Amino acid sequence: MANPLSANDPKLTSWVTVPTGSDFPIQNIPFGVGNTAGTKSRAFTRIGDTAIDLRVLWKVGLIPEVDGQENASYMGRMNCVLRCGRPFVRALRQRLSELLRNEAAPEVREQVAKAFVPVAELIMDLPVDVGDYTDFYSSREHATNVGKMFRDPANALLPNWLHLPVGYHGRASSIVPSGVPVRRPNGQFKPDPNAPPVFGPTRQLDFELEVAFITCPGNALGERIPVERAEEHIFGLVLFNDWSARDIQAWEYVPLGPFLGKNFGSSMSPWVVTLDALEPFRVAGPEQDPEPLPYLRTIGPHSFDIALEVALTPEEGPETTICRSNFKHMYWSMAQQLAHHTVNGCNVRCGDVMASGTISGPEPGSYGSMLELSWRGTKPLTLADGSERKFIADGDTVIMRGHAERNGVRIGFGEVRAQVLPAT
Amino acid sequence: MANPLSANDPKLTSWVTVPTGSDFPIQNIPFGVGNTAGTKSRAFTRIGDTAIDLRVLWKVGLIPEVDGQENASYMGRMNCVLRCGRPFVRALRQRLSELLRNEAAPEVREQVAKAFVPVAELIMDLPVDVGDYTDFYSSREHATNVGKMFRDPANALLPNWLHLPVGYHGRASSIVPSGVPVRRPNGQFKPDPNAPPVFGPTRQLDFELEVAFITCPGNALGERIPVERAEEHIFGLVLFNDWSARDIQAWEYVPLGPFLGKNFGSSMSPWVVTLDALEPFRVAGPEQDPEPLPYLRTIGPHSFDIALEVALTPEEGPETTICRSNFKHMYWSMAQQLAHHTVNGCNVRCGDVMASGTISGPEPGSYGSMLELSWRGTKPLTLADGSERKFIADGDTVIMRGHAERNGVRIGFGEVRAQVLPAT
Repeated sequence: MANPLSANDPKLTSWVTVPTGSDFPIQNIPFGVGNTAGTKSRAFTRIGDTAIDLRVLWKVGLIPEVDGQENASYMGRMNCVLRCGRPFVRALRQRLSELLRNEAAPEVREQVAKAFVPVAELIMDLPVDVGDYTDFYSSREHATNVGKMFRDPANALLPNWLHLPVGYHGRASSIVPSGVPVRRPNGQFKPDPNAPPVFGPTRQLDFELEVAFITCPGNALGERIPVERAEEHIFGLVLFNDWSARDIQAWEYVPLGPFLGKNFGSSMSPWVVTLDALEPFRVAGPEQDPEPLPYLRTIGPHSFDIALEVALTPEEGPETTICRSNFKHMYWSMAQQLAHHTVNGCNVRCGDVMASGTISGPEPGSYGSMLELSWRGTKPLTLADGSERKFIADGDTVIMRGHAERNGVRIGFGEVRAQVLPAT
Repeated sequence: MANPLSANDPKLTSWVTVPTGSDFPIQNIPFGVGNTAGTKSRAFTRIGDTAIDLRVLWKVGLIPEVDGQENASYMGRMNCVLRCGRPFVRALRQRLSELLRNEAAPEVREQVAKAFVPVAELIMDLPVDVGDYTDFYSSREHATNVGKMFRDPANALLPNWLHLPVGYHGRASSIVPSGVPVRRPNGQFKPDPNAPPVFGPTRQLDFELEVAFITCPGNALGERIPVERAEEHIFGLVLFNDWSARDIQAWEYVPLGPFLGKNFGSSMSPWVVTLDALEPFRVAGPEQDPEPLPYLRTIGPHSFDIALEVALTPEEGPETTICRSNFKHMYWSMAQQLAHHTVNGCNVRCGDVMASGTISGPEPGSYGSMLELSWRGTKPLTLADGSERKFIADGDTVIMRGHAERNGVRIGFGEVRAQVLPAT
């Protein structure tokens, strides 16, 4: 795959100030959707702490019009931009990079600066209208941990797990942008195995540390995306917190899978980091044994070295980092997930979201959910303020962060955060 | 609930010819979306074999403008109309009824007739952009049959089944209108339990006889729809064939539920029959024991007496009716399904689709899938042309029909049909 931004050359610098350690240097050029007080949502990119209004750049002719959108170009969510195709999006990102480089002429800089909005003034929205949301289950460590706790410790991994990337359909309507609080759900669960189920607020509210990819352009119904071309259908990645209510989930999930234990909310980071920007951080994933069926076989590295962490902040108290993991732990790659998803002819559209599943690493400190970190509540975590947690408490804020770094270039996601409100 | 069309008075007649036995008398007034060669999709109603272009009626001022749509009123799918709210949709249907009754003045008839399109000339589209699609599993007979075949015959029904309407998220992107062929999916399955999985076209392609409801207006994230108000959020019903590949499903479905065994296609009938039109066919559902938790308890009848049938037509051969069932067999009502779906705060939008799950009755001839009719292939069905079927063959067309009838008034759905194409 061609990298339009010269493999993230660390010598590439911008005339826009970028704070040291920022997730958003000129090598990133992510896409997001936001608005300022009293305005409508529209598309932005970001460098350092400066957001850039793509609509303003389009109006002065610095970037191309979105096909078929005319005066609505760059308005609303990114789906219309994505429907122009990957070459359009790549050329747009390349153009934005040129406008922001030191080489940009003073008169260009002056025009671009008119599109600046301080990130702190921007209210971020979801980057896309999510058509369908799929959640995979591709961390071997997570699947093994869950299998040990809920099923058979001796046969923790189910027979299909090493043969296909297990996944299921999630709920698109309840995906919310970072910052939107999540309300503790009510539901049915069965605290006493020998008594009937009860109804009430979940007692086992949990996060799941995930990375999701956003698709573009996708395939027609009845066709398929071959694994070797799958990455050509991935626009970019976001951090994803797939909130879960473990007690509701445990009672409802047989035989058709998770439902109300999941669909009360999922939180998404606002800036889509393109797969192109992550190209320098490509690494080999775990060895796959048994060898997958031919439609899932890939050549070369298809994982990405992205450091991930989860922090928890009580309503009044300091932040505690409770998990450090890495996207490279995923057993099944995004390319394999997308090839599997479409091998039966299932159609994927511009703006669909596919999440990784909880990304747990091999060490207890790298487990990507409270379920695993506290081992189903048997090993409570102690936070910086001295309080203990088995699961998430009302008022807690869960924050996920992620970045890749190599040769002095850091490509990051910013964060996804949400506070938990008490049940109604 | 008030019925705006006078409880389907059999004396109500129209100046438009309605063939004897039609599913679409003046008491029906369904909504659909379609187009004629070279035109864009727009909203229609239907009486007998005559479709009526709502856009034409709006242009001459016979029906109201769609809020916020101005010149786009009644263009595209029905979501914008639904977003005007149930009172708007009810008043619209009432108005359409008035325009089509015998009492309509000659000059009104003349204007209405200009909006006529013969149904045979109309290419039907999906009635709504489906936001999210949920599939329930609410037939006790179906769940019991599947449990007997795949799990434990002595404990066929899983422990949660009688306590909550089990459901899962389906794939919205692959829902297609009636008439669109469905391609036999490829996938992984495991014909030999002691050998590794294989890849290829499914050998167990199946239909599922279902009825789906379309939501309007729905609820905000974090709120819920109480069971006693749930029907106020149901716009109408369609027939739904939830195509399934049993071998793919059996291998993939643990622990997160059906995925590629389902998401290669679902077929929907084009005319949405409103819940108001079905009001006279309300009946009590099966007795529920144990009594559900309070949030699922309802007073009065919430099932609907809708006769359903499935027919199969080989590529060259006569049609054979292979199943006769009834929507009233559902253990969990639509009101209970919707209350359960939202009790955790999950938001439902205008145009979401919630399907019943396979509707099997108590007798073998009323089972709503080939899996059950042929008892997992052990009792092949003999068709009218003498050929046998364990599952669906390439070239077969599956047709589902449904109607309610009482006091000489017949409210029907027409049909949903799709032919199976061979795997690629």
